Amino acid sequence: MSNLKESLYQDRLVRLQQAMKQQGISGFIVTQNVDLYYMTGSMQNGNLFVPVDGEPIFYVRRSISRAVTESVYTVEPIGALKTLQQQLSSASSGSEEQPLVLATEFDVLPVAQFQRLQAMFPAAKWVDGSLIIRELRMIKSPHEIAAIKRAASVVERALASGLRHVRVGMPEFELMAHIEHQLRIQAHAGIMRMRAYNAELITGVVAAGSAAAVPTYFDGPAGGLGLSDASPQSASRRQIQQGEPILLDLGCMIDGYVIDQTRTAVIGTLPEDLQYAYDVAEAVLRATEAKLKPGTPCEELYLDALRQVEDAGLAEHFMGYGENRVKFLGHGIGLEIDELPVLAKGFKYPLESGMVIAIEPKFTFEGRGVVGIENTYLITDDGFEKLSISPEGVAYL
Amino acid sequence: MSNLKESLYQDRLVRLQQAMKQQGISGFIVTQNVDLYYMTGSMQNGNLFVPVDGEPIFYVRRSISRAVTESVYTVEPIGALKTLQQQLSSASSGSEEQPLVLATEFDVLPVAQFQRLQAMFPAAKWVDGSLIIRELRMIKSPHEIAAIKRAASVVERALASGLRHVRVGMPEFELMAHIEHQLRIQAHAGIMRMRAYNAELITGVVAAGSAAAVPTYFDGPAGGLGLSDASPQSASRRQIQQGEPILLDLGCMIDGYVIDQTRTAVIGTLPEDLQYAYDVAEAVLRATEAKLKPGTPCEELYLDALRQVEDAGLAEHFMGYGENRVKFLGHGIGLEIDELPVLAKGFKYPLESGMVIAIEPKFTFEGRGVVGIENTYLITDDGFEKLSISPEGVAYL
Repeated sequence: MSNLKESLYQDRLVRLQQAMKQQGISGFIVTQNVDLYYMTGSMQNGNLFVPVDGEPIFYVRRSISRAVTESVYTVEPIGALKTLQQQLSSASSGSEEQPLVLATEFDVLPVAQFQRLQAMFPAAKWVDGSLIIRELRMIKSPHEIAAIKRAASVVERALASGLRHVRVGMPEFELMAHIEHQLRIQAHAGIMRMRAYNAELITGVVAAGSAAAVPTYFDGPAGGLGLSDASPQSASRRQIQQGEPILLDLGCMIDGYVIDQTRTAVIGTLPEDLQYAYDVAEAVLRATEAKLKPGTPCEELYLDALRQVEDAGLAEHFMGYGENRVKFLGHGIGLEIDELPVLAKGFKYPLESGMVIAIEPKFTFEGRGVVGIENTYLITDDGFEKLSISPEGVAYL
Repeated sequence: MSNLKESLYQDRLVRLQQAMKQQGISGFIVTQNVDLYYMTGSMQNGNLFVPVDGEPIFYVRRSISRAVTESVYTVEPIGALKTLQQQLSSASSGSEEQPLVLATEFDVLPVAQFQRLQAMFPAAKWVDGSLIIRELRMIKSPHEIAAIKRAASVVERALASGLRHVRVGMPEFELMAHIEHQLRIQAHAGIMRMRAYNAELITGVVAAGSAAAVPTYFDGPAGGLGLSDASPQSASRRQIQQGEPILLDLGCMIDGYVIDQTRTAVIGTLPEDLQYAYDVAEAVLRATEAKLKPGTPCEELYLDALRQVEDAGLAEHFMGYGENRVKFLGHGIGLEIDELPVLAKGFKYPLESGMVIAIEPKFTFEGRGVVGIENTYLITDDGFEKLSISPEGVAYL
């Protein structure tokens, strides 16, 4: 293993153990595939035990041989968890002031698997460690930022190809299929990972006109009719028409890291009021950029944007229409598409250098379509770097 | 809503409520997207409350308007769960012989969301309802079987196109990209859903030679090197060579339903011992087919196959190599790729008419590749119907 790789994971471990110490956590059992990859370099199936002091051990179900190659930590077969169990129970016995406090990811771990962990460590008090690990992952290393930049290049090339390909009468899903193929032959892994329960995202939302404005379960500003009630979002069979907004909310996953960006296109020109809304979306993005620097509270960006769209007379259309509006302006991205921070009311985090955030002002017009723009930004020591490289402005085809 | 649709969902409700009655469950709170779709016809975000008697109510977070259109049951905003809470607590108070027993899906619901439900219904005793709903979904209706048949046609066309497309020196992921594009332009929804924690599947495994034999975390017989340690399965950048087995384990999702099948191809011919292993895989499939009828215990199919491959001298290579072997011969499919029943030791279910099962004898040769075959079958009243329509035998290219 390279020294670079070792120091990368060492840094993550130190930060995790610091947070554990502060919160009185004796051990963290990491279970989720993405968290395991982040902490060990391996996404094999198992549990990583991180003690508050000392070296973690990766207990692997399968593949053990592959985990040995990939992981920076010692790998043991999953059966060896019994040894850990004995060690922990003897260490915690007799010290009533220091109970065994174990953490795991309550936000993703299913109840049944948690109950198995509880049964294995009956003396432990369990706490939710998901915020710790999500906050850890919120600040990206140069290595991670480089991967997100590679994804940004891939998505730009696929978008450009898609814009050349689109024709009046083309079903949305055919345009989506073309773009996805362009992503895939550039080594996109096929989906963008999401952390939230029941959330699915393939490569984003490609939808036009009325179909784009159909609301859906997905926690984002653009819904989409989808291919059926069993996949009720994004591209549908509806044919793209002249003069209606085509929303291209696209991403991909390169070497584990996602990018997220949105562009608006139209065959011909947009109706005047939709062009106006698009221009307001860009203005919101510019006003937001002006505040993108360490120290700005995340919620301020959302609340300021709300005021700006209210002044522009578009509040009812902002980030969805009516009851279906979502209440955020942007979200962190990285290994998953729904990372911290969230630009929303109540998120008091100040921006920090190393955060990577997708900011996506959009306006929905029922029966007519969705317009907007989205870029991914890196927060730097003195401001920001725009990671999305696609040309801005409505793409008139 | 059509009468047909109504009676379909009515039947599912009756069967769920019968199982609840047998197990003393007062109410079932369905939370998972696929289970919600199965029970209501809608995949919007929310909780379905199913009382042991009477009509369910679908409490929806978003999109309410879309759920109203899609769901066969009454839709209420998620806030109305408070009313349910009051009704249930008053109904259960004062009847100590009949405590409030609530079920939900412990196998998929994250701990944090379960704790919120527990806090909402503090008097309830909670039980795991996942097996009930998975057993319900195990028996397919004609409507579901028709969707799986459509998926079987889609995958055959994509496979045939892929076999025409493959060339010596083509990276595995380019072949995968081509096939996925063929799937997607036939309205494949982009992924195949899996129920298991941390499990991901895009469209299956396309891998050749040594890369196909690399083990991975995925609970299946074929692994694959993958594109990076962050997506460590299926197609990789490795170039396909002459004379090595190309594994095409493919599926897609059409109208919510998946198909799963595997074919083996080669440019030129296979080494003799791998051709022999392929022939044994087909022989295992034929022997299994002979027992595919209502009444046969699921585990018997697996145990018989084990004996057959032992007699053939291939036990060490069956369903993975060495420590990385998986311990099943097949699995139910439907809305998800990992449904019941499982053809594995300990699964005593007798086969029943209406089950749909993918059966996949495969052999792994470390450093050399994976050969095998997989078909999806419907169990009928007097035997089986093969739903996979792709030609069998090694495809010599």
